[in-house]
Amino acid sequence: MSMVYLTRKAEFSASHYYHNPKLSADENLRLFGKCNNPNGHGHNYTLEVTVKGEVNGKSGFVVDLRDVKNIMGREVLDALDHRFLNKEVPEFATAIPTTENLAIAIWQRLEPKMTAAQLHRVRVYETPDLFVDFYGEA
Amino acid sequence: MSMVYLTRKAEFSASHYYHNPKLSADENLRLFGKCNNPNGHGHNYTLEVTVKGEVNGKSGFVVDLRDVKNIMGREVLDALDHRFLNKEVPEFATAIPTTENLAIAIWQRLEPKMTAAQLHRVRVYETPDLFVDFYGEA
Amino acid sequence: MSMVYLTRKAEFSASHYYHNPKLSADENLRLFGKCNNPNGHGHNYTLEVTVKGEVNGKSGFVVDLRDVKNIMGREVLDALDHRFLNKEVPEFATAIPTTENLAIAIWQRLEPKMTAAQLHRVRVYETPDLFVDFYGEA
Amino acid sequence: MSMVYLTRKAEFSASHYYHNPKLSADENLRLFGKCNNPNGHGHNYTLEVTVKGEVNGKSGFVVDLRDVKNIMGREVLDALDHRFLNKEVPEFATAIPTTENLAIAIWQRLEPKMTAAQLHRVRVYETPDLFVDFYGEA
Amino acid sequence: MSMVYLTRKAEFSASHYYHNPKLSADENLRLFGKCNNPNGHGHNYTLEVTVKGEVNGKSGFVVDLRDVKNIMGREVLDALDHRFLNKEVPEFATAIPTTENLAIAIWQRLEPKMTAAQLHRVRVYETPDLFVDFYGEA
Amino acid sequence: MSMVYLTRKAEFSASHYYHNPKLSADENLRLFGKCNNPNGHGHNYTLEVTVKGEVNGKSGFVVDLRDVKNIMGREVLDALDHRFLNKEVPEFATAIPTTENLAIAIWQRLEPKMTAAQLHRVRVYETPDLFVDFYGEA
Repeated sequence: MSMVYLTRKAEFSASHYYHNPKLSADENLRLFGKCNNPNGHGHNYTLEVTVKGEVNGKSGFVVDLRDVKNIMGREVLDALDHRFLNKEVPEFATAIPTTENLAIAIWQRLEPKMTAAQLHRVRVYETPDLFVDFYGEA
Repeated sequence: MSMVYLTRKAEFSASHYYHNPKLSADENLRLFGKCNNPNGHGHNYTLEVTVKGEVNGKSGFVVDLRDVKNIMGREVLDALDHRFLNKEVPEFATAIPTTENLAIAIWQRLEPKMTAAQLHRVRVYETPDLFVDFYGEA
Repeated sequence: MSMVYLTRKAEFSASHYYHNPKLSADENLRLFGKCNNPNGHGHNYTLEVTVKGEVNGKSGFVVDLRDVKNIMGREVLDALDHRFLNKEVPEFATAIPTTENLAIAIWQRLEPKMTAAQLHRVRVYETPDLFVDFYGEA
Repeated sequence: MSMVYLTRKAEFSASHYYHNPKLSADENLRLFGKCNNPNGHGHNYTLEVTVKGEVNGKSGFVVDLRDVKNIMGREVLDALDHRFLNKEVPEFATAIPTTENLAIAIWQRLEPKMTAAQLHRVRVYETPDLFVDFYGEA
Repeated sequence: MSMVYLTRKAEFSASHYYHNPKLSADENLRLFGKCNNPNGHGHNYTLEVTVKGEVNGKSGFVVDLRDVKNIMGREVLDALDHRFLNKEVPEFATAIPTTENLAIAIWQRLEPKMTAAQLHRVRVYETPDLFVDFYGEA
Repeated sequence: MSMVYLTRKAEFSASHYYHNPKLSADENLRLFGKCNNPNGHGHNYTLEVTVKGEVNGKSGFVVDLRDVKNIMGREVLDALDHRFLNKEVPEFATAIPTTENLAIAIWQRLEPKMTAAQLHRVRVYETPDLFVDFYGEA
C-alpha cells in the first residue's frame, strides 16, 4: 500500500472587489485601498486541487482523473469562471471574496463530492506572486 | 553603432465584458458567448513593451529603464490596473475591450511619450495561452 | 485599419524516434544518438499558432477564437496528441519527425484552413529549452 | 542545529501507455481511454527530489549538490530518459507506468542511495497541470 | 474559524561566493568548486514567505498584505537586493552564503517582525531548479 | 526547401556593476543608481540563441543540436558562468556590462563560429521581466 498525493491545476477568470457593508466608506477604503472600487477588477486565478489516497493496483491510479476533472468543472469552474464573484457567486453575497475566502469556498464545494480519494489541499493563486492554501483546518 | 531591442514586462489586473451596442442581444450573445455577461469577468494581463534604438556609448543603455518604467506606470498601469475597462477607461466607451483593441490602445498611449527610443512592439497576454502583438501597422 | 498578430497556445503529448532508412544502422546512431532508439521516447509539445489580420470593427477581433481553437483541434491536436508520430501520422512515414519537420507539417495542415485571418507563424517547443519557428518561407 | 529541506529539479522525456494485461481489451479502453493506445505517447516529465537534514557548519550545505546530481542522474535519469517506460524500465514490466507508480519507483530507486541526507519527497509532473507527490508513506 | 496559509513571492538579485576561512585553499576548491571564485557570481533569487493564521471575519484576510510587503521589503529586500552577500550582509561575515544559510537568515530577520500572523515557511530559489525550505525547525 | 528558425535556451549566473570611468562618482551614481555599487550584484541570466537555415533532407535538422550546444558552451557559458563580468570577461574591461552590451558581446562570440546555420538573434534575459534582442544590426 502506498499513499500518494495527486494535484491537478485549472484556471479561471473572474472579477471581484472588496467591501464590508458593516464598515463605513472611509473604513472600507482604508482597509481595502484600490481593491474597494465597486466596479471591480479581475484576475486569472490558478487553482490547484490535491487529493490523497492509496494507489489502486488495477489501474495504477489514486483516482480517475476524468472524475477529478468533472467534479472541478461542475462544482467550481462552471460557477466561478467568467463571473463577477460578489454578484454571481452565493458565498460572496456575505463573505468578502478574498483569496483566503475563495480557497475556503472551493474546499467546501469540493470536499463532499470527493469520494474516490480524500481532498487534501486547495491552493488558489490570485496572481503568480500571491497564493493561499487551505487544508480544511478549523 | 548597434541596434538593439529592449523589452520590459509588467502586469495589471482588470475586468471587462464584450458587447457591441449596435447589435441585438441575440447577436451579441452569439458573437461573444459567455464573454457577453455584463457583470464582467477579469484577467491578470501581462504587458510587454519593446523599444528599439542604438546603444548609448556613455551608459551602455538603449534607454534609461527608469524612464520606461515611469512612462509605462503613468500612461498605462495607473489607467488600467484594478479597473473595469468598459466603465473606467475612455477608449472602451466605444471600442470593445478585446485583447486586440487593448494592445492598440496601449500603443497609442505609449508611442507619443517614448522619445528616447522608438516604440517597436506592444504585446498583451490576456491569459498565458493567448496574446496579441501590435507594431503600429495600419 | 490596424494590423495585429494573435497567438494561441496549445499542448500535446506524443512520442517519436529519429531514423533515416536510407542510412546504415551505424550512420543513424552517429547522426541521432539516443534519439535513434526505435522504442521511441516522448515529449509534451507546446504549439503556438500566430495569425495576422486587421481588427474587425464590429467584434473587435482579428479572428473568432473559437474558429482558431476548432481548426487547431481538428487539424493538429486530434491527429498528433497521444500518438507515436513515426507510426501514426502520415507525414512521418517518410519525413523524420524532428521539431523542424513537425513545425512544417503543422503549417501545411493549418494554412489552407485559415481563411478568416492569415497564418503567420507556427512555433513548436519540443522542451521548454528548444523551439522551432516556421513562417512558410521556402 | 537547523533542519532544512533542499529540492533539486530535473527533466526527462519518456513515452508510455496504460494497459493492464489482467483486463479485457474493452475494460482497458474504458479504464484508460486514449492512454491505452499501445504505440504509446510521450511526455517531458519534471522531477523534483527533496532531501531533509541539518546544515553542515563547515560547508553551509545540507548535502553536496554534486552528490545529489550524480545519484539522480545514475539512478533515475539514465534509466528513464528517452525510454519507452513499458518496454525498457523493469518496474513497468508489471506495474502500469502512471504518474503515481512513477513517483513510487523513483523513490525506491533513490531512497537507499541517499545517505548524506534523508529523502523527504519525490514529486513528478507529467504535464505542467498534473503532478504526484510521494513521501514514502505506506 | 479557518486556518489558512498565505504565500507572497518577491525577487532579489545578489552575488556571493563560497569560502570557509578555516579551510586551506585546496580544501575550499575541492568543497566548493567554481563557487569558490572570490570575485563572486550572481543570482536572481526568488523568495517565498508563507504565513499561517485564521481568517479575519471583518476583512476576509489572514493578514494585511501591505504589512507583509513592507516587512519583507524593509527586513529582507533592502538588505539583500543588489548586494554582494559576503561583503555587505552581516550574517555572512561568518556564515557561508549558501541557499540553506540564506533561508535561515531570512527566517531570523522576518520571524520577530511577523506579529499579525505566524511565519510558517521561508523558501529561497537560487535558480528555478534549486530551492531550500526552512520552517524554523531546530 | 524550407527555412526554419531554431532557438536553444541556456542559463548562466554572473555578477556585474555599472560604472563609467570617464564620469565622476556623482554622475555614475545618478546614471546607474544602486547598480553602481562596486561590490557588484548578480543575476541568473537566460540566453536564447536563434539560428536560421534550411532543413537538411537527410537528418531533418537545420543544424546538429550537439554542435549548437558545444559552441554555446565553449564560446559563451564557459566564459561567463560564475564570473564577475567587469573583472573576468575581456569585453567588459571597457564596455559597461549592461544587458544590451552583453547581447552584443555574445553575438560577436557566436557569429564567427556558427557555420552550419546562420546566427539570427541573440536574446538575453537579465530577469524574467527584462530582456534584450540583438540581430547583428549596425
